[in-house]
Amino acid sequence: MKKIEILDSTLRDGAQGEGISFSVQDKLHICHELDELGVTYIEAGNPGSNPKDMEFFKAAAAVQFKNAQVCAFGSTRRKNCKCEDDANLKSLLSAETKTVVIFGKSWTFQVTDILKTTPEENLKMIRESCEYLVANGRKVIYDAEHFFTAYEEDKDYALETLKAAVEGGATVLCLCETKGGFMIDECRRAVAEVVKLYGKKVTVGIHTHNDCGLAVANSLVAVKEGATHVQGVLLGFGERTGNANLSTIIPNLQIKMGYQVIPEESMTNLTAICKRVAELTNIRVNPQSPYVGKDAFAHKAGMHIDAVLKNPFAYEHITPETVGNTRVFLMSEVAGRSMILEKIRRFVPDVKRNDPIVSDLMTKVKELESAGYQFEGADGSFELLVKKMLGQYKPFFKLHYYQTTGSNPRPEEGVCCCAQIKVEVDGNFEITAGEGDGPVNALDIALRKALEKFYPVVSNFRLVDYKVRVLDSKSATAARVRVIIESTDGQSSWTTVGVSSDVIEASWIALVDSFELKLSK
Amino acid sequence: MKKIEILDSTLRDGAQGEGISFSVQDKLHICHELDELGVTYIEAGNPGSNPKDMEFFKAAAAVQFKNAQVCAFGSTRRKNCKCEDDANLKSLLSAETKTVVIFGKSWTFQVTDILKTTPEENLKMIRESCEYLVANGRKVIYDAEHFFTAYEEDKDYALETLKAAVEGGATVLCLCETKGGFMIDECRRAVAEVVKLYGKKVTVGIHTHNDCGLAVANSLVAVKEGATHVQGVLLGFGERTGNANLSTIIPNLQIKMGYQVIPEESMTNLTAICKRVAELTNIRVNPQSPYVGKDAFAHKAGMHIDAVLKNPFAYEHITPETVGNTRVFLMSEVAGRSMILEKIRRFVPDVKRNDPIVSDLMTKVKELESAGYQFEGADGSFELLVKKMLGQYKPFFKLHYYQTTGSNPRPEEGVCCCAQIKVEVDGNFEITAGEGDGPVNALDIALRKALEKFYPVVSNFRLVDYKVRVLDSKSATAARVRVIIESTDGQSSWTTVGVSSDVIEASWIALVDSFELKLSK
Repeated sequence: MKKIEILDSTLRDGAQGEGISFSVQDKLHICHELDELGVTYIEAGNPGSNPKDMEFFKAAAAVQFKNAQVCAFGSTRRKNCKCEDDANLKSLLSAETKTVVIFGKSWTFQVTDILKTTPEENLKMIRESCEYLVANGRKVIYDAEHFFTAYEEDKDYALETLKAAVEGGATVLCLCETKGGFMIDECRRAVAEVVKLYGKKVTVGIHTHNDCGLAVANSLVAVKEGATHVQGVLLGFGERTGNANLSTIIPNLQIKMGYQVIPEESMTNLTAICKRVAELTNIRVNPQSPYVGKDAFAHKAGMHIDAVLKNPFAYEHITPETVGNTRVFLMSEVAGRSMILEKIRRFVPDVKRNDPIVSDLMTKVKELESAGYQFEGADGSFELLVKKMLGQYKPFFKLHYYQTTGSNPRPEEGVCCCAQIKVEVDGNFEITAGEGDGPVNALDIALRKALEKFYPVVSNFRLVDYKVRVLDSKSATAARVRVIIESTDGQSSWTTVGVSSDVIEASWIALVDSFELKLSK
Repeated sequence: MKKIEILDSTLRDGAQGEGISFSVQDKLHICHELDELGVTYIEAGNPGSNPKDMEFFKAAAAVQFKNAQVCAFGSTRRKNCKCEDDANLKSLLSAETKTVVIFGKSWTFQVTDILKTTPEENLKMIRESCEYLVANGRKVIYDAEHFFTAYEEDKDYALETLKAAVEGGATVLCLCETKGGFMIDECRRAVAEVVKLYGKKVTVGIHTHNDCGLAVANSLVAVKEGATHVQGVLLGFGERTGNANLSTIIPNLQIKMGYQVIPEESMTNLTAICKRVAELTNIRVNPQSPYVGKDAFAHKAGMHIDAVLKNPFAYEHITPETVGNTRVFLMSEVAGRSMILEKIRRFVPDVKRNDPIVSDLMTKVKELESAGYQFEGADGSFELLVKKMLGQYKPFFKLHYYQTTGSNPRPEEGVCCCAQIKVEVDGNFEITAGEGDGPVNALDIALRKALEKFYPVVSNFRLVDYKVRVLDSKSATAARVRVIIESTDGQSSWTTVGVSSDVIEASWIALVDSFELKLSK
């Protein structure tokens, strides 16, 4: 089986998508997910363009990944200067990644009208930049920006730029369909010619955009013509209509076309990994997304359901479990049970497959999930749920009421919100109040104050992350929201979840889970 | 130029999508939109399967369309009966459409295991059903369900079913890739053979699903092989991952590949028609949708914006106006003077590059962005900001205060939150209160109530989308949040933004911007 290497650019090209921005922590979390998936390269940012990316590369250098190599991205040197004086190339080196990706211009129009230099100087920029990076011990992936347009408009020059990169020592020539405007056959022809010319010397790659809805198709066609390196973004987001969607390309290549792309066991994690990356990006996986969307194996037509019940092969192109997804109309007893079982075994190692707790928990999880809960990003709440259903949990406090008040203009400087709560612990009552930045902060302060009296350990942990996701956003301000809170005691961390149409209530539920979980340990 | 006919199945196969359902009125409105677009056929429902569809066909029969023919959809007759006794075929006729679409089985597995009949009887079902419909004066489009699977598993039989349809008098043989699991080259080969066999006698068509992200690609490939009839759904929704997206296929065929598909003037209406169909379906057009999505021509990377301003061709595969879409520059930290200038010029066409307003606005935007604002998803708030800085804005109301109260346990059933506000309009005061699902919903209700009295137009628009993003999430519950609200009056839509550490205040700011922007127009 021919091996195809994947470069994921979620953190670089994907970050060009509308509304997408990552913190350094988000980036590190996403790297772990991509590494688990088994991609070859993670293109993680442009150290020359912003200080946050440089901070990330420092942090990433300390991490050992199983499969993936983290790469820094940048451009060829500026015109008319030396590589060693080029600030961008220097930043690229200081990111200290084994492999770097640099892009250069293939298209004469871009050279003369955008860069405003000569075609000859551009060739030197490409060759010398590659040479400089190679001389500094880097493996170079060369991205030929606008290659397909260039090939169409001035083929000879386009091929010369590739030659410059190969001569400079690049080990991957990645052909970029930057504008996303090319049809399948044009794409195929250009890739075929490059593979014929350079396929024996270097790895040929493909990088596409979805402006004509063909990013996936053009990537597959390129592979058929001999490209063995595919760039894209796991969930397909990115500037304009997005980058090539790797969550579609990877299973197409491996399951349908017989290439070796990621480890077999990662394939069955594909859907879960996509969900977690979406969560970290604060977006949803498109429900209609091939393979990994929640509707990808959802059957609605009566006739289809009938047929699928007789034989799933009647209306399913693959078994959903192959990519870790599930068939939706069915109760999915078999698949669901194994998953739940595995989770329960973390707390009760010897639980039997047919223990009633398994079915009960499955029913409960389904009920909560259809109400908007999601436990993938909230292991703490899930653990608490299991403990409660196993009868291994005793409540640490009882809430009598909470009340929040917010007003504008603010009554006093610095106070925008107050909360009052009443809790009961072993027959003792505690009524506390808190003021905070917003009602949720005020509630957190009041609850902490009340519980500290009974459980001093409460002062040892704190909330470190707070995420809000609107679920059915079409109901606008009446929409249900899901709040996910991450807490830490400095050693371990746990996440909890709450759902309600009231953002305060949702936050309260997650907050209480966080306190209860910690106290139960 | 070769003519390609389009069959839109938004109202039939599209209606299999999760959460999609149409009233008779919706269906009629959508027919008008599709007719304006210039499709050849509108597959509008299955009169044999539900009474609402029959009611629709009665209503549609009274309407004269410019371009499109409305078609009824159904299946071949049941096994072992006569056509004239088949309830489904009778309903098809009673829909009184000139053209009917019937589907039949191509795949032996489906014949023997799902229909539980013999291959011979299935051939008779196909031939006789076509004959019967033709004898009753109908033009017949024959949908060969599962054709590609059938071709792969038992090619001879698959081709025999087509022969039966042709002998029965079908004028279109539409090859259906029902499971959506086929790769491009397999699809291509099967279509090529059918075109070779039957292309001179009948029209060959293609119908694809997007389970591998290839519905568009496979449709285009089929056309290249000689298919001249393409079935799909305008916005690509449908069961599982959806049907072939016609809003992508049509411009690809006509603009990129040189086929004649729809009238030239309809192409420039494509984006508007898609928006109206989405509105009638109660969904949003996917922002990343090729050609017609709101981000399809949105540029964010500073370098790209720079280049596009020099020459749009640098990063755009077509002029957005060709499909009635518009170029958008996303406001982001990297955005420079050129972009700000371009935005101001929409409101003040003759502003000079060195006008102090440009610098002032840049400073203001930077200041707001570093406070957590993001204008790339909030054009409405940006427009309002420009108007305010240009002195082109007079306030429509003044807020005296707002107050919200939330509590748990809830005081009464169904009421979780109350809001009270006091606004002033031209010296008149209005104090209103609202109850809602959460404090923000309550505020929206109270504000709407107050302003409707002075500005009745307020009742014509509504919020359609509500997003919350936690910014510095490490401050946990005291973190600042960014709220983005999308509103619509049914024709246009606008987005506004608010930032605060109090989620209620952030929502209020975005809410007020939305009302103010609409009132200022």
